[in-house]
Order: sequence, then structure tokens, then C-alpha cells
Amino acid sequence: MRLTSFSDYALRVLMYAHSRKDRLVTIEETANAYGISRAHLMKVVNILTRSEFLLGVRGRSGGFTLARPANEINLGAVIRATEPDFALVECFNPDNRCAIAHICGLPIILNEALGAFIGVLDRHTLADITVNPGDFALPGDGPAPQRGPELAPAPGPVPEAVVERAGSDI
Amino acid sequence: MRLTSFSDYALRVLMYAHSRKDRLVTIEETANAYGISRAHLMKVVNILTRSEFLLGVRGRSGGFTLARPANEINLGAVIRATEPDFALVECFNPDNRCAIAHICGLPIILNEALGAFIGVLDRHTLADITVNPGDFALPGDGPAPQRGPELAPAPGPVPEAVVERAGSDI
Repeated sequence: MRLTSFSDYALRVLMYAHSRKDRLVTIEETANAYGISRAHLMKVVNILTRSEFLLGVRGRSGGFTLARPANEINLGAVIRATEPDFALVECFNPDNRCAIAHICGLPIILNEALGAFIGVLDRHTLADITVNPGDFALPGDGPAPQRGPELAPAPGPVPEAVVERAGSDI
Repeated sequence: MRLTSFSDYALRVLMYAHSRKDRLVTIEETANAYGISRAHLMKVVNILTRSEFLLGVRGRSGGFTLARPANEINLGAVIRATEPDFALVECFNPDNRCAIAHICGLPIILNEALGAFIGVLDRHTLADITVNPGDFALPGDGPAPQRGPELAPAPGPVPEAVVERAGSDI
């Protein structure tokens, strides 16, 4: 399960713009700061501007900046604007062909899980993931450390020994 | 944001096996029931057997069946076994190159969101998504209706009019 790199880059662009909130930033300097392609970021900045998360200024000394204070840029709203879809399974797609979609209970559970996921993001804004200009490593510093994911182990069936012990107490 | 079709098919295979729980089923009949390729399901059944969700029986009249009662097959555990990863963003990957991974607060929030997502699935088992043999449409019945996703609207900033009214009361 992944978010698209488009969403990943969108969040990074917003974080970079926030770290330089006293001035306009350019696509080029943002691309350089993260070591990613300028071409990738052009469409990202376009969508973020159209969704009113960024404010673009045209011209030779143009660029972009946050369109609103960071604590008004909701992370859930950003992901809704940048993910192409939330089609967790085939029957969430318009061209669904699953034979049991009319009766299956799985979409209800997946919608609940999706709601829980986006609900967490809805409780956070860009202000919660602030970075400072000095936090951007210089080119050539090598890869940054890996972070996650941290997935709890699956709840298993009760081990047999525990069941037996519990039974002997009754 | 999507699950892989591998996970989608895995859940469908388990549901099909559960709907015919009084006998062994084959990959071929499962593939026919859903109108999907037999080749796609071979690896799915293999993983589900290795993960002890299915029990495979070799031989001419072989097939597979659920390895445990449906209420002991946890949906979260299935997804953990079938998704190749939960690398929501680049820094969740071993080959991460994001320059701010050492300082960024986003992975903490995304891990919380991921935990909320899988937590919902952990509260459900295969018994919650039971289907009956008659629920499988006959070939040629056309596509089944689309189901989801149901994503609540993003929480917006407080409308200006409301802020002004609240202010005048203070």
C-alpha cells in the first residue's frame, strides 16, 4: 500500500515553501533541495496552486509561496487533492468486474479503514511537519536514513497453552 | 492510494473458499467464478497456503480449503501477508534519498494513519465478509455495480462570516 510519489512530492514542496515562508521559492531550487527532477515538480506545483495551497507569482523574479498559513493547510485535504484515487480494490473503480460486488461486505470495512487513515491526516496541518532551512542536507551528503513503516504485528489466535491454562481455572 | 490486486485477489480467494467450505475448491473454479486469470491466482493461493490461511491438498482430486475457521482469519493479518510493502512515501523505502528524512515529522503522522487503517482491518475476520455460493454471478452477467470509496470531504478553514460573528460576541 503506497501513496503516489505525486503526493509525496506535493507534501515536500509545501514543506520547502514553508521553510522559506518569508520569500518566493522556485521549482528549480525546490528540486535541487530534494535532489529530484524539476519536471516532476512542475505538475505538482500546478495542482497545488490550482487547489489553493500555493500562490504562484509569474515573471522573471516570480515563484511560489504558501497561499495560507501552514496551520490552515490540512494534510488530509492535500492528499485528497493529489491522490488520483482511493480505489483500494477493484470494485472501487468505475470499470469494476468483480462478480460479488453487489453483495460483498469488504467495501464497507475498507471504507471504514480508509476513513480512519484519512481521519488521522485530517487532524494534522502543515504546521505539524515544519522543517527549517538548515534541515536540507547539501547535495552529496548521501541518502538520508530510512524511517518507517511501523506496522504492529497482526493479532493472532490465542496460543493453545494460554487457552488450556484459562480452561483449567474454570 | 490502492492495495495491490494481489491483496484484492487474496481476499476474494478466501471468500470463495469460505463459500464452499464443505469441500475442496480449485484454482480453476475460483478463477472462473471471478472471471480472472488462473495464472494470477496461482501465486496468490501459494502465498495464502504458506501463510497458513489456506490448506492445500495435492493430487488429482486435490484443491484447497480454509486452514482455520473463518472467524480466526483476521483481515489485517491477510493484508500484512499479501501487500509487498507499506511504503507510503519514499523514506519508508530502504533506498530512501529524501534530504529531510532525518528531521521530518511526516513519517510519524503517516505511521499513525497506517496504524489506524490496519487497526480497522484487525478488528474484522473473514467471517464478517461471508458470501454464499449463489452470490457469484453467472459468466456473461456483465460488470457488477461499483461500490466505493466513500471519502468524507476535507475539513476546511472556518468560514470568515462565522469568525466575524464569533468575534462580535466576545
